[in-house]
Amino acid sequence: MKNEYVDIDTLKFLLYNVHHTEDLLSRERFSDYDKTSIDIFIDSVKTFSDNALFPFIKDMDEKPSYFKDGKINVHPQFENILKPGGEMGLVGLGFDYDDGGMQLPSTIFHAAYFIMEAANNHVPGYFGLTSGSANLILSFGNQELKDTYVPNMLDLTWGGTMCLTEPQAGSSLSDVATTATSTNEDYHLIKGQKIFISAGDHQFSSNFVHLVLARIDGAPSGIKGVSLFVVPKKRPDENGDLVYNSADIVGEFEKMGQKGYCTTHIVFGDNDDCRGWLVGEPNKGLSYMFQMMNEARIATGRMGAAIASAAYFSSLKYANERPQGRKLNSSGQKNADEEQTLIINHPDIKRLLFSQKAIVEGSMSLIFQTSNYFDKEITSTSEEEKEKYNLLLELLTPIAKTYPAEKGIESTSNAIQILGGYGFCFDFMPQQYYRDIRIIALYEGTTGIQSLDLLGRKVTIKNGKAIELLAEEIQQTIKDANNYDEFKSYANELLENLGLVQKVIGTLMPHALKGNFERFLADATVFMDFLGTIVIGWQWLKTANAAQQVLIAKNGNQTDAFYESKIHTMKFFYTYELTKAKGLAKTLMNEEELTISVSNDIF
Amino acid sequence: MKNEYVDIDTLKFLLYNVHHTEDLLSRERFSDYDKTSIDIFIDSVKTFSDNALFPFIKDMDEKPSYFKDGKINVHPQFENILKPGGEMGLVGLGFDYDDGGMQLPSTIFHAAYFIMEAANNHVPGYFGLTSGSANLILSFGNQELKDTYVPNMLDLTWGGTMCLTEPQAGSSLSDVATTATSTNEDYHLIKGQKIFISAGDHQFSSNFVHLVLARIDGAPSGIKGVSLFVVPKKRPDENGDLVYNSADIVGEFEKMGQKGYCTTHIVFGDNDDCRGWLVGEPNKGLSYMFQMMNEARIATGRMGAAIASAAYFSSLKYANERPQGRKLNSSGQKNADEEQTLIINHPDIKRLLFSQKAIVEGSMSLIFQTSNYFDKEITSTSEEEKEKYNLLLELLTPIAKTYPAEKGIESTSNAIQILGGYGFCFDFMPQQYYRDIRIIALYEGTTGIQSLDLLGRKVTIKNGKAIELLAEEIQQTIKDANNYDEFKSYANELLENLGLVQKVIGTLMPHALKGNFERFLADATVFMDFLGTIVIGWQWLKTANAAQQVLIAKNGNQTDAFYESKIHTMKFFYTYELTKAKGLAKTLMNEEELTISVSNDIF
Repeated sequence: MKNEYVDIDTLKFLLYNVHHTEDLLSRERFSDYDKTSIDIFIDSVKTFSDNALFPFIKDMDEKPSYFKDGKINVHPQFENILKPGGEMGLVGLGFDYDDGGMQLPSTIFHAAYFIMEAANNHVPGYFGLTSGSANLILSFGNQELKDTYVPNMLDLTWGGTMCLTEPQAGSSLSDVATTATSTNEDYHLIKGQKIFISAGDHQFSSNFVHLVLARIDGAPSGIKGVSLFVVPKKRPDENGDLVYNSADIVGEFEKMGQKGYCTTHIVFGDNDDCRGWLVGEPNKGLSYMFQMMNEARIATGRMGAAIASAAYFSSLKYANERPQGRKLNSSGQKNADEEQTLIINHPDIKRLLFSQKAIVEGSMSLIFQTSNYFDKEITSTSEEEKEKYNLLLELLTPIAKTYPAEKGIESTSNAIQILGGYGFCFDFMPQQYYRDIRIIALYEGTTGIQSLDLLGRKVTIKNGKAIELLAEEIQQTIKDANNYDEFKSYANELLENLGLVQKVIGTLMPHALKGNFERFLADATVFMDFLGTIVIGWQWLKTANAAQQVLIAKNGNQTDAFYESKIHTMKFFYTYELTKAKGLAKTLMNEEELTISVSNDIF
Repeated sequence: MKNEYVDIDTLKFLLYNVHHTEDLLSRERFSDYDKTSIDIFIDSVKTFSDNALFPFIKDMDEKPSYFKDGKINVHPQFENILKPGGEMGLVGLGFDYDDGGMQLPSTIFHAAYFIMEAANNHVPGYFGLTSGSANLILSFGNQELKDTYVPNMLDLTWGGTMCLTEPQAGSSLSDVATTATSTNEDYHLIKGQKIFISAGDHQFSSNFVHLVLARIDGAPSGIKGVSLFVVPKKRPDENGDLVYNSADIVGEFEKMGQKGYCTTHIVFGDNDDCRGWLVGEPNKGLSYMFQMMNEARIATGRMGAAIASAAYFSSLKYANERPQGRKLNSSGQKNADEEQTLIINHPDIKRLLFSQKAIVEGSMSLIFQTSNYFDKEITSTSEEEKEKYNLLLELLTPIAKTYPAEKGIESTSNAIQILGGYGFCFDFMPQQYYRDIRIIALYEGTTGIQSLDLLGRKVTIKNGKAIELLAEEIQQTIKDANNYDEFKSYANELLENLGLVQKVIGTLMPHALKGNFERFLADATVFMDFLGTIVIGWQWLKTANAAQQVLIAKNGNQTDAFYESKIHTMKFFYTYELTKAKGLAKTLMNEEELTISVSNDIF
């Protein structure tokens, strides 16, 4: 199943040639691994995805998970996915050996999940959320919590979830109202309800471990009063038997896509005896949760890129098989007596394909770039290096979440367009990917929330240190590109855009300094679009540099055409996408204030 | 139901103040009408839509039309829609009195259908296709065809369809393979199959009149050998009884949206006795069909704008009701003890709303502009005027089809974004509108096909006469805007963009002149995006001029705030949308040739 949903050659090229994953493997933490063992692991994930995931994606859409009699029922194929995947180690890929994990780099974790999500985006969340919640317990929980919960989560005997959202407080975590009342025992009594809980229940795990944000009685208002609890669906009693814990599934949200991935509504403490165990210290829940959320944000962006990858290959297959229309001759006419040509021969179809390739591979590269910073941060021995990679990671995380989400929508829409009317029909896959991917810009903080984070927090962090570090990274890529005459004009284009970033920030910052934060942040989403486009431009130049290097050194294991296609797609991105940045800068530097101080009845 | 799906005040403002529909009414053909009678008609369509259409849109999605035992079954509510709508005259709105029509301007036809489609986009196609096919018979058929078919179509006793697409020839009409064999009688024998036939069958019309493109035996290849036939589902025999005509429904295409609007697969002549009656002359079928297709293209764009209108109002309602988050104070902090604010108070939500308003009302205005040219063309007495309006109509038609389709996708996506996670759930409407609207960029020629038409045919028509005429129209608007100091900078922006249009065309044309049509047209879709954005910029300046005029003359029947909102939205469009045009121009003037002469295995 080469290139039915993911291009493993490109994935490996990005890992090894563009992001130098082998350098990571020389670090102490990862020293048991080399390129060969990583390749074997990646190939095994591909085989698993070919056999257990990809063949079932359509059926999971047609037979969605559903709620009945207090339980969620997911597609029967999950029986052949969850336990086997757990046994492959998919939950604990990045965990320490001591915690039962495989201690792999985060970059490899993301590569593996990318493959699985491209094969079937309805599935990997069940692993990912269990992994994330187990990781939270390992990072901040006491030994008893670790011993009680984590071993069962590693092979998905028990599933894990994160419970943040409440009906009255979607994105506004200050307004979490679920309560936690202390008792004379080691637990609190939890009461409240949580919605949009992904992977919250199913018939193939015997228990669920919910990581729940709640407010201890008397805690301060706002985010400073939010604590984190482990709330099992069934709690182990003194004999280790599982007993009812009043964490009831009361419904499932019916969605337009990703229907195999359940989205549940959970009510805690209806009988006033729902027990939760505090993780770490009181009132620090949000800062703990943010560890998980930051990972989940990168993971969500990755999922967007993966869905777009699958849509791309599905439309590419069609374009290579479907004859329609003819080439124009030099009089601008078509000869109806000729055979029809394959639609891939039409420039507009090529444009739609390149646009998908540019978005998919550019997004993949950004995910690996971001996780590479993560891996370097956690393995750096110098504090200065740790801070550098942490700041770069913090800055790129909201972009890595958002670019693949927003541009992934456009990319899957282009896949539909290639199929024409068939693209809108259930017989073909693009319409499903188009429905599936639309959630990505909403999960884990909407695009608006990510954009406030980017401009409001990350750009201003340590007086702009993060953006300075990013500029240095980009400048290094520009410098590398200037070694190749063919790349100089593109390098120059990127440099110009980098200057524009400074100019835009210089125009916006005074509003913040004057205390007019509403004005400062009003166009944060436009800023996200602007900086995201430039960051992907950087990734493409970096990718082209790596390709050129291989071509010159003649040391690649792919054909020359493979590397040339990377260079060609870089040019496409610079010609068709990066050209949009200046217009966005103009919008950002406008002096109108059209979305603030406007009466609501203007609409 | 004010503003639940359409803003009638804005619709009337566009009709009367921006596009001076009253001037049309002074023309002979429309002289029975005045503003009062038009208003009464529009209000009656709104009432019909409120009662019979809007309440059923969700249910039509949940209970799609389906195929069973050779028949299509549509939602039962159609019983209360089709006949009553037929009796209101909705099929023959624009037809001559002599043909049983109401002889209304096309502009009013589009206004009425806009309202109905905003209320329920699954419905009006049943009227529209019957109207279009009846109109084809009236325009090109002989008296017998007119007498036999049209009267029954006017009240939807019989439905009408257009049958172009075949499985092996989607957009490529040169490849129509359905055959027509002449007989000694007045009919041909038709054999072949047609797919994607909208409104092709249902239980509430007793017969269907298919307008079928087919190739008479021995006809030339390509589009020059295509003829048009009336092929009834059941043919009237000598006694006027309806008998089987071997036009069999063999299936329905299951689609991701617009599920109440059936999309059928029809097989003609399985028993070798499917009779079709030639419309007009042999081998001229495509030119006849193009009359219908041109109308259908404007209608399709209108449908896109209407769906986006409904999504806009659905998200506006939510934004006005949903409290979430808080305003930032001057330290950039939120006070968690304050009440949450309505989300409409967040600038990013306002931006999402303005972007929808700008797209929806800009698209409506373009539809009315285009149909205004149509009405002027058919009622002009001077040949020169007729030609002028015809050329403007021809030029704007592919844009009027495409801008609302492509930008409408973005607009409905913004509606989802406003609702956050709820936007993805079946309990709320935006996800349905998002699924429904995706077909608009595919119907009646995909965006790629429209773009080839725009750049390849319309821009080059009569040595660029159409684009020259458009430039004159735009310049008039710029001149009007220059009367108002507040508008001068926007007028200037539009002028600059108009210059850019000339420059882009000047860069592209030499490729055509050198016979390199593939290169000339490679980026036609980017050109569509570019020119479409500028054309909508023109419509917005025109709209703002009209609003300013009313404000100065103090002769409006709306509040000042209503007119000021138009001016504000114009500014929004110029700041957030028109700024994109320069980047598109840069793409169009690039000297790379990245989508042509590239090997297909680059992907």
